[in-house]
Amino acid sequence: MVNNSRSEHDLLGYKDIPNSAYYGVHTLRAVENFPITHVPISKFSFLVDSLALIKKAAAKANHQLGLLDEKKCNAIVFACDELLAGKYHEHFVVDVIQGGAGTSTNMNANEVIANIAIEYLGGKRGEYSILHPNEHVNLSQSTNDVYPTALKIASHFGILALIKAMTVLRDAFKNKSLEFNDVIKMGRTQLQDAVPMTLGQEFSTYAVMMTEDIDRLSEALLLIHEINLGATAIGTGINSHPEYAATVCQYLNEYSGVNFKTAENLVEATQDCGSFVQVSGVLKRIAVKISKICNDLRLLSSGPRTGFFEINLPPMQAGSSIMPGKVNPVIPEVMNQIAYEVIGNDTTITFAAEAGQLQLNAFEPVIGYSLFKSVSHLSNGCLVLAEKCVNGITANKEHMRKQVENSIGLVTALNPLIGYENSTEVAKIALHSGRSVYDIVLEKGLLTKEQLNQAMQPELLTKPQIG
Amino acid sequence: MVNNSRSEHDLLGYKDIPNSAYYGVHTLRAVENFPITHVPISKFSFLVDSLALIKKAAAKANHQLGLLDEKKCNAIVFACDELLAGKYHEHFVVDVIQGGAGTSTNMNANEVIANIAIEYLGGKRGEYSILHPNEHVNLSQSTNDVYPTALKIASHFGILALIKAMTVLRDAFKNKSLEFNDVIKMGRTQLQDAVPMTLGQEFSTYAVMMTEDIDRLSEALLLIHEINLGATAIGTGINSHPEYAATVCQYLNEYSGVNFKTAENLVEATQDCGSFVQVSGVLKRIAVKISKICNDLRLLSSGPRTGFFEINLPPMQAGSSIMPGKVNPVIPEVMNQIAYEVIGNDTTITFAAEAGQLQLNAFEPVIGYSLFKSVSHLSNGCLVLAEKCVNGITANKEHMRKQVENSIGLVTALNPLIGYENSTEVAKIALHSGRSVYDIVLEKGLLTKEQLNQAMQPELLTKPQIG
Amino acid sequence: MVNNSRSEHDLLGYKDIPNSAYYGVHTLRAVENFPITHVPISKFSFLVDSLALIKKAAAKANHQLGLLDEKKCNAIVFACDELLAGKYHEHFVVDVIQGGAGTSTNMNANEVIANIAIEYLGGKRGEYSILHPNEHVNLSQSTNDVYPTALKIASHFGILALIKAMTVLRDAFKNKSLEFNDVIKMGRTQLQDAVPMTLGQEFSTYAVMMTEDIDRLSEALLLIHEINLGATAIGTGINSHPEYAATVCQYLNEYSGVNFKTAENLVEATQDCGSFVQVSGVLKRIAVKISKICNDLRLLSSGPRTGFFEINLPPMQAGSSIMPGKVNPVIPEVMNQIAYEVIGNDTTITFAAEAGQLQLNAFEPVIGYSLFKSVSHLSNGCLVLAEKCVNGITANKEHMRKQVENSIGLVTALNPLIGYENSTEVAKIALHSGRSVYDIVLEKGLLTKEQLNQAMQPELLTKPQIG
Amino acid sequence: MVNNSRSEHDLLGYKDIPNSAYYGVHTLRAVENFPITHVPISKFSFLVDSLALIKKAAAKANHQLGLLDEKKCNAIVFACDELLAGKYHEHFVVDVIQGGAGTSTNMNANEVIANIAIEYLGGKRGEYSILHPNEHVNLSQSTNDVYPTALKIASHFGILALIKAMTVLRDAFKNKSLEFNDVIKMGRTQLQDAVPMTLGQEFSTYAVMMTEDIDRLSEALLLIHEINLGATAIGTGINSHPEYAATVCQYLNEYSGVNFKTAENLVEATQDCGSFVQVSGVLKRIAVKISKICNDLRLLSSGPRTGFFEINLPPMQAGSSIMPGKVNPVIPEVMNQIAYEVIGNDTTITFAAEAGQLQLNAFEPVIGYSLFKSVSHLSNGCLVLAEKCVNGITANKEHMRKQVENSIGLVTALNPLIGYENSTEVAKIALHSGRSVYDIVLEKGLLTKEQLNQAMQPELLTKPQIG
Repeated sequence: MVNNSRSEHDLLGYKDIPNSAYYGVHTLRAVENFPITHVPISKFSFLVDSLALIKKAAAKANHQLGLLDEKKCNAIVFACDELLAGKYHEHFVVDVIQGGAGTSTNMNANEVIANIAIEYLGGKRGEYSILHPNEHVNLSQSTNDVYPTALKIASHFGILALIKAMTVLRDAFKNKSLEFNDVIKMGRTQLQDAVPMTLGQEFSTYAVMMTEDIDRLSEALLLIHEINLGATAIGTGINSHPEYAATVCQYLNEYSGVNFKTAENLVEATQDCGSFVQVSGVLKRIAVKISKICNDLRLLSSGPRTGFFEINLPPMQAGSSIMPGKVNPVIPEVMNQIAYEVIGNDTTITFAAEAGQLQLNAFEPVIGYSLFKSVSHLSNGCLVLAEKCVNGITANKEHMRKQVENSIGLVTALNPLIGYENSTEVAKIALHSGRSVYDIVLEKGLLTKEQLNQAMQPELLTKPQIG
Repeated sequence: MVNNSRSEHDLLGYKDIPNSAYYGVHTLRAVENFPITHVPISKFSFLVDSLALIKKAAAKANHQLGLLDEKKCNAIVFACDELLAGKYHEHFVVDVIQGGAGTSTNMNANEVIANIAIEYLGGKRGEYSILHPNEHVNLSQSTNDVYPTALKIASHFGILALIKAMTVLRDAFKNKSLEFNDVIKMGRTQLQDAVPMTLGQEFSTYAVMMTEDIDRLSEALLLIHEINLGATAIGTGINSHPEYAATVCQYLNEYSGVNFKTAENLVEATQDCGSFVQVSGVLKRIAVKISKICNDLRLLSSGPRTGFFEINLPPMQAGSSIMPGKVNPVIPEVMNQIAYEVIGNDTTITFAAEAGQLQLNAFEPVIGYSLFKSVSHLSNGCLVLAEKCVNGITANKEHMRKQVENSIGLVTALNPLIGYENSTEVAKIALHSGRSVYDIVLEKGLLTKEQLNQAMQPELLTKPQIG
Repeated sequence: MVNNSRSEHDLLGYKDIPNSAYYGVHTLRAVENFPITHVPISKFSFLVDSLALIKKAAAKANHQLGLLDEKKCNAIVFACDELLAGKYHEHFVVDVIQGGAGTSTNMNANEVIANIAIEYLGGKRGEYSILHPNEHVNLSQSTNDVYPTALKIASHFGILALIKAMTVLRDAFKNKSLEFNDVIKMGRTQLQDAVPMTLGQEFSTYAVMMTEDIDRLSEALLLIHEINLGATAIGTGINSHPEYAATVCQYLNEYSGVNFKTAENLVEATQDCGSFVQVSGVLKRIAVKISKICNDLRLLSSGPRTGFFEINLPPMQAGSSIMPGKVNPVIPEVMNQIAYEVIGNDTTITFAAEAGQLQLNAFEPVIGYSLFKSVSHLSNGCLVLAEKCVNGITANKEHMRKQVENSIGLVTALNPLIGYENSTEVAKIALHSGRSVYDIVLEKGLLTKEQLNQAMQPELLTKPQIG
Repeated sequence: MVNNSRSEHDLLGYKDIPNSAYYGVHTLRAVENFPITHVPISKFSFLVDSLALIKKAAAKANHQLGLLDEKKCNAIVFACDELLAGKYHEHFVVDVIQGGAGTSTNMNANEVIANIAIEYLGGKRGEYSILHPNEHVNLSQSTNDVYPTALKIASHFGILALIKAMTVLRDAFKNKSLEFNDVIKMGRTQLQDAVPMTLGQEFSTYAVMMTEDIDRLSEALLLIHEINLGATAIGTGINSHPEYAATVCQYLNEYSGVNFKTAENLVEATQDCGSFVQVSGVLKRIAVKISKICNDLRLLSSGPRTGFFEINLPPMQAGSSIMPGKVNPVIPEVMNQIAYEVIGNDTTITFAAEAGQLQLNAFEPVIGYSLFKSVSHLSNGCLVLAEKCVNGITANKEHMRKQVENSIGLVTALNPLIGYENSTEVAKIALHSGRSVYDIVLEKGLLTKEQLNQAMQPELLTKPQIG
């Protein structure tokens, strides 16, 4: 009979671990303690990569400072590289929502790395006398500096991807704004007819909004580059080598290609979640803007017969089995929902950040989880919105031009040409008769057809003019 | 030279109090400690009334139990009746946002009532040897039972007023739903043309929503009828007479006309803010619903030329100096903003409720303040929305009927009469040609004009039909 | 060469579907359109079951009304029963966050059920001429009545499970409250020493809170029993048999064992998300309460040397690699985080509900997703908290009794026995000397040791006494 | 008989205006339309000042561009200067929550300024033929550019004041951190004893947090310097002089002393509320941090007998009438509540910003109101917290040192001196016996008293050491 498990022990006693597992007893206890979402931390591969980067940098720093022998260092580095190559991620099994301030995530990493390294050194999984999860993989570290740093590294890579996705969306809007450059339409304030503008101007605002949001996100990105590796338990650096903090940061930057910086006050950096709150606040801002844009897209494409009918979104799927030919704005709708989720995540993060006490915030797991969701869903949503919606938008030019001709707001624009009194008169007639301003102006001989068409050119109608 | 102040002392020493003030040293310290919003608690007269009701009931209960002599009892009762008559409210000067779990509000009441009573007994303000704010007005009480009870009484009266205002709004929608009973229009899902309905059906949904919200609010009202008078400091009733809790509740009900009940577990009742969270949750629900309704009203009245143009809101003020004749939906807009404020207040209340620790929630002042704002602003908004908007709404019947005739969705409704194959054919032609379904059906001789008009009667179009 | 796919078509054209798939072209388009969370709807098996219950009831109702032949009806019923037996759930592959107001979820169900039924009838997957997803499985239905009803059924079963879990937690607190019935300790208000109470009283408040929350949740449960099956597209019941709504509800109740009721106003019921907002509001209330309780548990167990050290939570895992013997309150911590997530979900739901427009709320998918997460995570958390924490809590009786003897607050309790003047004197000495009240009272001969111990019995100290 | 009113008319007809009023018919209609909060816009004098600055700059720009004659320009400038001198503010009577996208606030300013100017020109209030609110005061402007710009200017000045208040608070923490530089104490993670640190380190984190928050706020301040004056109705600058936008901005900067910049894309700038969302997000971050700090202060000062008892907050008022000598942390408590309010305001702002549609956000009034409250309450709170709390904090040094000697965590610190095996042994004895680590180390002769005291010096205990 084959034994399919090995025995490991911790503070609380012995436990059987499946032989196939690269994790150990600390991880297994955590799995049993936190059967909450059933979403394992491996769902966010950036997080696994980040832990590997930290453990690799720590091993090298410890070795350089004479705290870890070369053999062990090499084995740990090998194990981390395996993780960075995408292997063994399925052994990161702890629930994304966990108690213990991230200890279980850190221990999950320590144990998996230790066991890969032990095999590399010719041992069997669980033979921690060869290389120990705590004494060697976690050397000079504490969950309290490893975990927040890992969240920051993972956020960094997630945000880079989001910025890329936002840029794709921004460019989609920009292209449409150029394409619709000369399409004249009525602007609306408070959903009431206002004055003329171009559809290009309308889409240009979306491009500008995305550009500004990319700028804000890039600024917030810098904040999470401040890390607290070397803080150990509470920021005093207890039990760490005086040169460790600087050394590990240097290796981390070498391996990650990012310019992380050790915080000046490590006690503060260990307990503070301000940078996560800031990033989430910016994500919320992005969500608010994109949601507003999607609301607009849905409004402008409302109809086809009883709505605004100014633009057409590309049909992506049948809208209704009961109503033939109905096509719905499903892509903006999914983006709206992502936005609502991001806004909700910000509430969660706000609560969790406020709840930190004294030298640590024990609720960083839910902060990280919420942040990762916001970042990745927004990324996915931006790409989908660009590719499956914005790129395929078409304009109902004739309809929009007719509305400009029809609109009272045109009078405001003709004011400089026909004078205030004529304007008022034309507006009054149009309001009461329901007729077109264009027709009334012609009929009253205030302008010739040529003059009127000239006046309605976008470059004249939609810019400041000398009164 | 006249001395315009008197000297009072407390734990921290002596302080000059303006002679004109009915409040005393505890109140003055609080005024100095909390210069936050500069909104005094007198802004919410329901709260002052509630404190008066409690202090009156307590005096009577104390007298009945032999703890307070008749003279003092009468004087306190006199003072409370003065407050209930609307006098002296300007002496409730403590800031609505205050530390101390409401102690300053309670002391403000104790001091004002004491000084009114002292004058009634022939003394001068500040002569607390005649009647003492703590020893007599606050007898058998603690801030920790008085303050939450006062918040509940005040909420009760505020909510009653809100229910009345919501009923006015509900009736306004109901009247419009009857008035628009036979006005046919296109229904929309996801802002896309769907199938026909009546404008009366549309407005009936708003009436139903308000009715259901009134029901929910009435249920929540019952929760705040559970009070903790008699709990004293932490719910153990320390230093109170065993019969005090029952007796004071009886008097309170007599004076307030409400059926308050003493909580079974006073320790729980003293620390728990669940009923406020529940009430605020229901107010948030109301806000969500009314905001959705206002969004609809603004959509349906969008235009006049480039929007839905189905209904007209009564003009309440000029919309723009720059665009002649522009009228904006200002009343729904103000209601939307009230809704957003109520939703924000709910976040505040959620945070404050969660922050309670052990035997007390020290953050009840901001809970009460937020709740009172939500209740009173919603009340004001409902009345304004009913009277200055809904009552004056008119329908553009012809426009809406035209849209039904034009709409592809009409085909769905004609399905039972002309058969599935003909329906599909008509829809296809309408979609590609942009022509009216009504005209195509006539042209193809599928129905006579009489049959078609008959089919378009609201009672047939907008109810289930045998297939 | 074997062909591993079949071709299906919809409004937008043809698409290859993997032969192994029971879903069809509509589902595949949705999978491509919504690559957002990568969480498939099958994650919530209650939702799949609910769709099966609806489709089964609809088939039976359609058959009874003469709209569906017996053979097809039986095949659909067979397919639904397979789903209810837990089979084929892996074919529910649409993303939980999706545009289209749930159309893709409904079509996913229609297609999977159709293909199971087709095989049952001897056909091959994709042979929709035998039985059609839209024409037969979705007969008399629309996403707009099926989807919200499915969310309600699923919520019903989720909430029942949550109530069960909350009851387990409530009982755990109740048991502890009995166990700690005679353990005397100091109560605290505003984190400052107040007056004595028992640890039993403290835990009884948690039991009461849970009981009240179970009551609130049970009330909210009734609200989601109101369904809109029969509403079809917008609530007018267009294209449905006049008796369909009543008939399908009857079958649904038979199969589900629940007492669902058809809403009186189906137009209102189709667009309204009020019941979800209410349920979420109650879940938020529960979260607030449990979070407060967990905050208390963490406070009371703080230490062991520098904290309150009143209770001990059972150790569930090692707390720190760097600090030997450290055990952290990981179970309350995970519950706090669940609470923050639930509160965030409520924000999401509030936003999504407010965004509904006219005859439909297109954002129900994110409402359902958020609600399901809140319900299931709270359920898991309550069980974990009860079993892995509360049940194993022990009390440090001696420490707490010492603190009572030491505390100034004891004077308040001794007031009735030694009189106000002596009390004040003892308090003054204790405050300045830092000595124990117990010792001072003995030393001054105010009470004998027997009298003092007698006075400190819980039943005397922690209830109202005649003054 | 004297007539106390004058008659004015607008689009909707004639209305009597009290003769004493400097406002006119548009303002009066708004007062009647929006009886919501009963808080007039004059409550925020920064807002009135901002409107005056804009109107003054506009008059000068219009005059320079030849659109307004010198006499009228001078009169308007005079009127604006009166407002800037603090006069006439009581005539800004419109409710802070108002429909119409701020039109009523703009018209209130136009009317008051016109009437002051008319009197300056020798006319009587209401004689708009002399100088017209719309035609002259509002010349080249629209609510849609004036109002958001006014909100930004007012926010600018409010935020400057907040930064000043935060600096006072930061310095208070910094001073305390220096004062407590050598006070040794136990650090805590997850409320469990961790390792030693100094009280100075603890307070230094608060100073660092405030510094970082000041930095974030200063960054956000720059965002609101981007204005849209010259956009007029929707950003196209319709009816404005091509040089107006640049000219008015120049004057505005001259009069305000701020470096405002005209947005590049005025269509975008007119509809976008992103900068308000960003500022509010940063205010929320500040609230989260300060709330966390106040939670810590309340924890550290808990007791005096049954709490942490590490620091003493200065007593500001009596805490309880029923519990002699009780002093509560009322100042941190009021700050916590301000924080909850700010977080709630952020929710309101998020909702309002997301609700903007097409070319305008009609909900800026509630955005401005919420922002102003957050800014001013935080300002007030920071000053109160600094002056009435932090400055007076004292430390219980002996108590804290005792706890370090007692704590298991001391072993971690002694590790480098006595070795890992001895450390484990000492920890084990301490854990089981409950005795002091200090005593055990002495007793076992591992260190002499001198060595031990030497080791416990802050500079050794609380920094990285060579292992």
